[in-house]
Amino acid sequence: MASRLVQVPMKLTLERTAFLKSLGHVQSVVERRNTIPILSNLRMTASAEGLGLNATDMDLEITESIPATVSQPGATTAPAHTLYDIVRKLPDGSQVELSHEGGDGPLVLRAGRSRFQLACLPVDDFPVMSPGDFSHSFVLPAADLRALIDRTRFAISTEETRYYLNGIFLHATEAAGQPVLRAVATDGHRLACVEIPLPEGAAGMPAVIVPRKTVTELRKLVEETGMVVNVSLSEHKIRFAFDDVCLISKLIDGKFPDYERVIPTDNDKILEVARQPFAQATDRVAAISTEKSRAIKVAVAAGTLTLSASSPEAGSAVEEIEASYGATPLEIGFNARYLLDILDQVKGDAVRLHLADSSSPTVLRDAADASAVYVLMPMRV
Amino acid sequence: MASRLVQVPMKLTLERTAFLKSLGHVQSVVERRNTIPILSNLRMTASAEGLGLNATDMDLEITESIPATVSQPGATTAPAHTLYDIVRKLPDGSQVELSHEGGDGPLVLRAGRSRFQLACLPVDDFPVMSPGDFSHSFVLPAADLRALIDRTRFAISTEETRYYLNGIFLHATEAAGQPVLRAVATDGHRLACVEIPLPEGAAGMPAVIVPRKTVTELRKLVEETGMVVNVSLSEHKIRFAFDDVCLISKLIDGKFPDYERVIPTDNDKILEVARQPFAQATDRVAAISTEKSRAIKVAVAAGTLTLSASSPEAGSAVEEIEASYGATPLEIGFNARYLLDILDQVKGDAVRLHLADSSSPTVLRDAADASAVYVLMPMRV
Repeated sequence: MASRLVQVPMKLTLERTAFLKSLGHVQSVVERRNTIPILSNLRMTASAEGLGLNATDMDLEITESIPATVSQPGATTAPAHTLYDIVRKLPDGSQVELSHEGGDGPLVLRAGRSRFQLACLPVDDFPVMSPGDFSHSFVLPAADLRALIDRTRFAISTEETRYYLNGIFLHATEAAGQPVLRAVATDGHRLACVEIPLPEGAAGMPAVIVPRKTVTELRKLVEETGMVVNVSLSEHKIRFAFDDVCLISKLIDGKFPDYERVIPTDNDKILEVARQPFAQATDRVAAISTEKSRAIKVAVAAGTLTLSASSPEAGSAVEEIEASYGATPLEIGFNARYLLDILDQVKGDAVRLHLADSSSPTVLRDAADASAVYVLMPMRV
Repeated sequence: MASRLVQVPMKLTLERTAFLKSLGHVQSVVERRNTIPILSNLRMTASAEGLGLNATDMDLEITESIPATVSQPGATTAPAHTLYDIVRKLPDGSQVELSHEGGDGPLVLRAGRSRFQLACLPVDDFPVMSPGDFSHSFVLPAADLRALIDRTRFAISTEETRYYLNGIFLHATEAAGQPVLRAVATDGHRLACVEIPLPEGAAGMPAVIVPRKTVTELRKLVEETGMVVNVSLSEHKIRFAFDDVCLISKLIDGKFPDYERVIPTDNDKILEVARQPFAQATDRVAAISTEKSRAIKVAVAAGTLTLSASSPEAGSAVEEIEASYGATPLEIGFNARYLLDILDQVKGDAVRLHLADSSSPTVLRDAADASAVYVLMPMRV
């Protein structure tokens, strides 16, 4: 190793609070177990602009920069989780000094009377994702991005064999003659589809599937920001940039199914019900349904909705709620968990169910918000 | 079953809030998986005094009574976790009606427009622990009981083969010529020993080992009470009663080791150090010690205590703290987790370590409180 440049000497001082916040972001990309040792490390780059942190799992990369007083620009890599653990345990308000002599030596972290030496790996070995060229770029308010994620992510499939369903399908399309950016997720049992007006610059963008882990990390990052997010994408990669954070992710290389065919358009039995009582009653009735099936029965008739469940061991449950319904009475079974996931995302006071019959998919919508549509497959009860 | 009295008809109304609180207590005794079906159930007894709930795992039994308006006294048994789940999900402020027709029928729970029918099992089949005769009874302030538990429970062994260490050893003895009630727990790596003045009535009581699960459930129950706890015990059983709750537990049938021989009395190297900086530095240094061993090194010399750790993968850590120490310098290794468990229980500002040498047990005490003593075995580092 001696004949090779292992790392460049560096020295800097920074605030523990700012360091901890950024470490919190980047370390969560780093997997706990890695067969390739350098993937357990962060790349740290000190320059006139401050300290840059870089974490990757080869599919997803986060870069973040932190204000720091740099007396010696340089770079190294150090274990992400250990570094995070140390900084987390330092007293609030600490000043942290990081230094590296270059060569094979350790990263030295000093704060107060604490002194840590962390084993480093060559900075040249750290895999950096080539950003490549992005064909499309647009800007999204963080609140819109949060809504697109929250209202669809619960429906992402966890079945690894159907890898093309393991993410959110993001694409530009038209709705009622207006261009929209649409996010869709489905696991075959339920489907969530949410849209916002198409941002400028997104027209003609490739349709992409953003992987679950990227969705999870992105959602954590945008929790805190009130800013806009710059989104850039091409067929194989997507980048989200805001504040001092940049996340680049590979996209799922697969074909998302033709989801529009799954959304029924001629379900003509319309039920409208107050969301909260409906959700609470569903939750209670589910206390009786078996852990495995979670099946509950929904019976609709003029003016009422009756929820029920029964299991051979536990017994039975019945709940009645007032509802607005004028079509022929109907009974249909649902998975209570799936129904609750959807009701959790309806923010308005009332939810509207578009029913066909007891063996066809049901459409659910927020009665006051046309931007989201949910489809729920029936269960035999 | 028809020829047999399965349950007695009953009918009552009670407040959801009070019901939920009691269900929360008793359901946690009920194991999630039971080979004997009735152990999944609660016994419910309605009488002029209100509703009595009873849960058991055959070793530990909790009885609790709740104010209720009883229109028909009677008894039945119903599934504990399902009942808890339902009541938890009922709206705050609900009135709950419970009724049972007698015979093989279900327990009917009504609240608002909710109606549940729960499968029951014969009340006669419910195993009730015979309280037996208690040879000794005394009263403990709840705060004292909490302290006895908190300061020892972390040291309870989890090794099932050493079943006699799987609880807290409670016994009457003498300390400095005064009668005391002493609680001791050890797993062979560390020992915790706490005492309070012997309560009236406890003199001559049998020495008993209270099982871990009983300790856990008892600790949850006494969290909320500011009252005194009535303790009764004999050789094989212990009872704790307060407010409207009564817990009866079998005791571990085994011999607790002669722990006094394990507590060194002639460790003459005395180190005194501020507790909080010591705990924080230990925690930080442990970030470097390997997950498995948790080994850290403590080096003491005049005026300072130096904590350090190293691991082949992660690197090394050094922390220095001011300490009061006048004896010959010494190095000793500890399991950081075990040391932190003890420091967590020291409530005063300073902790005193009584050291002998690097291969002998160390004694730890709160510098301002003689009622607890901790012993920590050294590790090779």
